[in-house]
Amino acid sequence: MNKLQENTICSVSTGHGESAIALIRVSGAQALNICKKIFFSKRVIKTKELKPNIAYYGKIKDLNQIIDEVILTYFKAPKSYTGEDMIEISCHGSEYIQKSIIELLINKGCSLAKRGEFTLRAFLNGKLDLSQAESVANLIGAKNSKSHELAMKQMRGGYSENIQLLRKKLIKFGALIELELDFSTEDVEFADRKELINLLSDIITKIDPLIKSFKYGNAIKNGIPITIVGPPNSGKSTLLNKILNEEKAIVSDIKGTTRDIIEETFNIEGFEFRFIDTAGLRKTNNEIEKIGIQKTHEKINEAAIIIYLFDINDFNKTQIIDNLESIKTKNIEVILVGNKTDLNKNEIIEFEGEIIYCSLLNNIGIDEILNSILHKTKKWKNLNHEFVITNQRHYEALINTLESIRLIKTGIQSKISGELLSIDIKTALNSLGEITGEITNEDLLDSIFKDFCIGK
Amino acid sequence: MNKLQENTICSVSTGHGESAIALIRVSGAQALNICKKIFFSKRVIKTKELKPNIAYYGKIKDLNQIIDEVILTYFKAPKSYTGEDMIEISCHGSEYIQKSIIELLINKGCSLAKRGEFTLRAFLNGKLDLSQAESVANLIGAKNSKSHELAMKQMRGGYSENIQLLRKKLIKFGALIELELDFSTEDVEFADRKELINLLSDIITKIDPLIKSFKYGNAIKNGIPITIVGPPNSGKSTLLNKILNEEKAIVSDIKGTTRDIIEETFNIEGFEFRFIDTAGLRKTNNEIEKIGIQKTHEKINEAAIIIYLFDINDFNKTQIIDNLESIKTKNIEVILVGNKTDLNKNEIIEFEGEIIYCSLLNNIGIDEILNSILHKTKKWKNLNHEFVITNQRHYEALINTLESIRLIKTGIQSKISGELLSIDIKTALNSLGEITGEITNEDLLDSIFKDFCIGK
Repeated sequence: MNKLQENTICSVSTGHGESAIALIRVSGAQALNICKKIFFSKRVIKTKELKPNIAYYGKIKDLNQIIDEVILTYFKAPKSYTGEDMIEISCHGSEYIQKSIIELLINKGCSLAKRGEFTLRAFLNGKLDLSQAESVANLIGAKNSKSHELAMKQMRGGYSENIQLLRKKLIKFGALIELELDFSTEDVEFADRKELINLLSDIITKIDPLIKSFKYGNAIKNGIPITIVGPPNSGKSTLLNKILNEEKAIVSDIKGTTRDIIEETFNIEGFEFRFIDTAGLRKTNNEIEKIGIQKTHEKINEAAIIIYLFDINDFNKTQIIDNLESIKTKNIEVILVGNKTDLNKNEIIEFEGEIIYCSLLNNIGIDEILNSILHKTKKWKNLNHEFVITNQRHYEALINTLESIRLIKTGIQSKISGELLSIDIKTALNSLGEITGEITNEDLLDSIFKDFCIGK
Repeated sequence: MNKLQENTICSVSTGHGESAIALIRVSGAQALNICKKIFFSKRVIKTKELKPNIAYYGKIKDLNQIIDEVILTYFKAPKSYTGEDMIEISCHGSEYIQKSIIELLINKGCSLAKRGEFTLRAFLNGKLDLSQAESVANLIGAKNSKSHELAMKQMRGGYSENIQLLRKKLIKFGALIELELDFSTEDVEFADRKELINLLSDIITKIDPLIKSFKYGNAIKNGIPITIVGPPNSGKSTLLNKILNEEKAIVSDIKGTTRDIIEETFNIEGFEFRFIDTAGLRKTNNEIEKIGIQKTHEKINEAAIIIYLFDINDFNKTQIIDNLESIKTKNIEVILVGNKTDLNKNEIIEFEGEIIYCSLLNNIGIDEILNSILHKTKKWKNLNHEFVITNQRHYEALINTLESIRLIKTGIQSKISGELLSIDIKTALNSLGEITGEITNEDLLDSIFKDFCIGK
């Protein structure tokens, strides 16, 4: 048993404040003994034991004082969330009762659980790997169906199984290379270099899309960034307001009304979008406006999708090309929207690529814009691999792995010594192991579980 | 079945916001059928049924999409909180998951429970009487051990059993008197008037202390009011600050510093006290101070205990007697405290009754004051009957009952007609029945349960 698990812990696991019901969890070797001292049920007296997985109705008592009438369920190790003996007490949701039961449990020998300690124990007892444990926090924090889906997938295994498998193969090669070092005077090769190169390529093929998926995963978790850009007075703030259906951004006929970046999230079909309204792109001498335009260029490259809005009565091909010039990567989708069809002088617009025409004033074309956003989002989603990284820690570990794997590969090709090869393999193994928790330390665990809810 | 109970209801019963775990409750005839459509567990597949009182681990699914991994427990009617078939689902405490499961339940035929609807159904199904049902809300709202104790007592039956018993006896007499009316031409007395008088006296003996206990019950629920009064500059605000151990009230050497009434609650040995600091009692021309002194006199009569603080170096017997003159009832306990022993000029104080001497400046005597408060509170508590009323509605019903009972009594003594007697008996029966819920209507039920938590 790990020293972290010597004591029996307890915590309220449900939300704060007064409520109909609250749930208190107890986990550890003494869970059953402690709860037997405070829980009294006619059925238990009759059968003389507390059977696992049965919901017992009874009283929590402190000496002769009844604290509450509760439902108590015992989950016997290892068939529990933590893998230890666990008790769940469902009591009335009074803050006084919650506090009294927790105090009573502590008096009888429990200690108060730290944030995430139940899940930490589940990890330490092998019920979850580290990546799955982390996904529990993501699952609880999920605010839309897509981020919920990703967290659920990760919790049920996700990519960590693949990573464990690749890591095991790499361990085998690492061991063979260590063996070569023991027999270094004999100049034999136990580890087939060709096979190792193949394995390394395989690892790269598997982790490269995971690394690339991080931008998508991050967007799913925090909202897919959609930046609305275009010349001044093309109707950008109006578009934001129409999408949100509220007067979020100040709208006026004066060019350069919007200076600060305005952000607002919005849900469409389970995707969470972060709409970003920006200052109009034009040459100006106004210093405040200049800063706003500078910020717009920054926001362009953070976007997943750019809505470029222009006035069709003031079409300027060169201007559009100029303004979009600052887009640095090819991963950003652009939707061109021509506004103010209501003022249309029937001029013909010549431009390669699709343009959505709209009259924001008359609420015409807004659905087409939203549909186009959804279409591009789904396309972008399908571009991504089956598994998606949402966790910064995993992302960094994968970047480190990729670097080490590339070092090993070039090392083999340039025939570096077994010693150096062995060091690089260990670095790669460490990075991979950090994701699933096969390599871990208390600091890492502390930093992961400190963000958890109390009682999880 | 009552028309209120035709549908199957669902609700999140635990606290708001993100948390480790949330509990969702389903109650009604379709609870089991509905949950079978969305809950999938290997153990259920094996045994082909969902047994009551067993905690099943499984998945909540919407078509093929997994919403969460949960623990589900089935409570079979009538052995459940509501007396109906009930299901409790313990899921991850993500707001998204809670929302999704509730939406799914509603899609499959549940309706969203109204405030207190689970407890309302428990009442309608005879699992609790109305007074017990009301105590559930008190229990959840209890903030200290004494109000918790009262609510728990009431939930477990409390005085409502006694009231039901008295009411049954009164019903019997009422019926006999009705019978007399049917045979009114014959001038017989089925109902023994002497026995009726005895019963009425018995009812009065039982409900009179209950009515009197309301002031105590109310104090226990909202804090026992302790008013600190005395001449200006005797140290009243200092005493408040010392008791609370914080600088709550502004303290200065200038007479008349405190003008507004300052209230603060404080817990001692499970009792919640409301300490009330007041303006010093003196003759003054300052208009603002005058208003403050006026308010002090009002607060004196709201108190359960008065701490009368004076400077022992400025003792004035007549002043004390004058100042305490406004106490109107004998139910208020007074603690006399002589402050500023540090400045003592060794003058002898002559006064009937105990005086606690203290030096607030040197923290001397504060424990004695607190002990005296506790002592007087316990004495006051023991004066009260075994059962205590905390509910304004019960209080009013009992007052009405008492009035009707007295009317019946004088009616019998002045030999009024059976018709009039019968009307008074019905009024008394109604008032008594309102407490336990034997007499009820939808408006009354609505007004009681609207203050409940959602999910209770």
